[in-house]
Amino acid sequence: MQGVILDICPTATTVTISHEIPPQDVETAGFVLYQIYKYYPARTVHCVVVDPGVGTNRRAVAVRTDHGTFVGPDNGLFSLVLQAVEVLEAVTLTNPDYQLPVVSTTFHGRDIFAPAAAHIANGIPLSKIGPPAPDLIQQPAQTTNPGQSRIIHIDHFGNLVLDITAQEVDRPDRLTFELGGERITGLRQTFGEVEEGELVAYIGSTHNHIEIGMRNGNAAQTLDVRRHDVVSVKQ
Amino acid sequence: MQGVILDICPTATTVTISHEIPPQDVETAGFVLYQIYKYYPARTVHCVVVDPGVGTNRRAVAVRTDHGTFVGPDNGLFSLVLQAVEVLEAVTLTNPDYQLPVVSTTFHGRDIFAPAAAHIANGIPLSKIGPPAPDLIQQPAQTTNPGQSRIIHIDHFGNLVLDITAQEVDRPDRLTFELGGERITGLRQTFGEVEEGELVAYIGSTHNHIEIGMRNGNAAQTLDVRRHDVVSVKQ
Amino acid sequence: MQGVILDICPTATTVTISHEIPPQDVETAGFVLYQIYKYYPARTVHCVVVDPGVGTNRRAVAVRTDHGTFVGPDNGLFSLVLQAVEVLEAVTLTNPDYQLPVVSTTFHGRDIFAPAAAHIANGIPLSKIGPPAPDLIQQPAQTTNPGQSRIIHIDHFGNLVLDITAQEVDRPDRLTFELGGERITGLRQTFGEVEEGELVAYIGSTHNHIEIGMRNGNAAQTLDVRRHDVVSVKQ
Repeated sequence: MQGVILDICPTATTVTISHEIPPQDVETAGFVLYQIYKYYPARTVHCVVVDPGVGTNRRAVAVRTDHGTFVGPDNGLFSLVLQAVEVLEAVTLTNPDYQLPVVSTTFHGRDIFAPAAAHIANGIPLSKIGPPAPDLIQQPAQTTNPGQSRIIHIDHFGNLVLDITAQEVDRPDRLTFELGGERITGLRQTFGEVEEGELVAYIGSTHNHIEIGMRNGNAAQTLDVRRHDVVSVKQ
Repeated sequence: MQGVILDICPTATTVTISHEIPPQDVETAGFVLYQIYKYYPARTVHCVVVDPGVGTNRRAVAVRTDHGTFVGPDNGLFSLVLQAVEVLEAVTLTNPDYQLPVVSTTFHGRDIFAPAAAHIANGIPLSKIGPPAPDLIQQPAQTTNPGQSRIIHIDHFGNLVLDITAQEVDRPDRLTFELGGERITGLRQTFGEVEEGELVAYIGSTHNHIEIGMRNGNAAQTLDVRRHDVVSVKQ
Repeated sequence: MQGVILDICPTATTVTISHEIPPQDVETAGFVLYQIYKYYPARTVHCVVVDPGVGTNRRAVAVRTDHGTFVGPDNGLFSLVLQAVEVLEAVTLTNPDYQLPVVSTTFHGRDIFAPAAAHIANGIPLSKIGPPAPDLIQQPAQTTNPGQSRIIHIDHFGNLVLDITAQEVDRPDRLTFELGGERITGLRQTFGEVEEGELVAYIGSTHNHIEIGMRNGNAAQTLDVRRHDVVSVKQ
């Protein structure tokens, strides 16, 4: 994909966001994108291809917003980002002039998405690349009962990102979390406020989501929890 | 290696192709290069250093072709690529003017290959870097009996790349593959044509090789097969 | 971090040195930096963030030297490098004009270090970014008894880097190493001087440290040794 991009747009600066997305894990890719997109220049083209439906009739899209253009399969990858940005234009990538001459059935990242991203970086308007793409797919958030939260992401360090933000909480000092047989009380500012190996809840650096970590340890491994697991939350 | 390249050729655009080549695995590196080289601009210098023979008398070479210049040890790394391109010039990297001032015995990637690649990117002609290198080493393809194929590569997703191409097959609908106690019939266009977790044979996106995969699963792990394993093929 | 850097300094060339530093492993990061910094142009800004003390009162620093500027937490990360370069200027990164508008308590890499590195790459003098930072933290080297050496690093291939250099040895041919129940005699020039699967001691490619490896094998796994383990050395 980088070869294709640099062949079409030799002046592009390309950055690989992550080498740690598990195969076919649309949700993790979408969360990582949500964490990083706003720190990139607003003119950035984000080409994101986690594409279990390649070769089926899922749409290939480009979405221009007030903070970046997003290119990839229309399978819910962009759900979190699209809740946070304003969509200015969205198209389906059907014009063969902006695809590789031969399009495989299994690697649209190389044959459709990378060429589209590079042409957009070159200044080609989206309207030339395909017709409007209304009704982009939004992955529904997992629901929880009152008094519960859910783990939506586990990062490289084993920290658990929950689906509640600091804004939703009235009395942070009274918060109590229960998971994996352990109880954590209060929200801390930093890991440094607890002892080595102790669990700690804190406001994460991404969009104010609450996270649970372990000072100089791996909370996910220690608690043996997984994404989508439920955490009891009391205020 | 990237530091050395950017020190010699500050305007170079560098791309790391893969972080997943197992140590000393010349064959996997050669296959990955074969998959990607033609998608890079023809002026690209590919510096590939999987070099179990570093410090022995294996040659260090640069090979200019009609689609890219290839720099690395002459140990068969470039076998697949050299079957697909036209070689215009090949030299041995012996001129110390185009090496680092101190050359270690164990890291020629940094001390010999990266400097050569950067000088070539700067426009230095190969003839200045060393004398002609005839008779580049070609790794012989593994042979099989009639009615058999061999796994030549297993990708990141666990898909199996076979050593036969679509062109060698007369009646794709009649093909039957047997491996790991399982039987797969017919060639499909996409993973989407089979159920989740089902095995599928299809034409891969690299040079039309036939591949065997599992929809939303890992065929190599499920079948417990390895590179070089034999697959029975009936037409 | 790359997004922040490219937003502030769009013309920067960014290189990711390693994806293999274990979480919170300050010592490994410091050694990898020590291995590579001198191969980068002297004008390079090295932004290194292994930061177990984030959110505590550890200082955030930038250190300008005769071979590169180093940006990161003042936690001993730069110990090895600082023994090898001349420090020209060191400051604490306290000026909010050169931080992101909102600084999290857990991700100073993105909010403090990356912006500082990008502004320095843009030519902002260190004196504008904060006041002088005297007495940078130096991690003390692990001591050993006479006749002993210590493993200070294990590389990607499982080779063991020892804390002695070739210069400290009078009669290389008489050297004997004992570890993991095995004995290795003499210093070799290359892996090629021993048989496949045999252990070998040699002068490594980094700063002349002596290393122990296994030809086409993984010495660390085979010997079941770890960093900081002691090796008996006889001359």
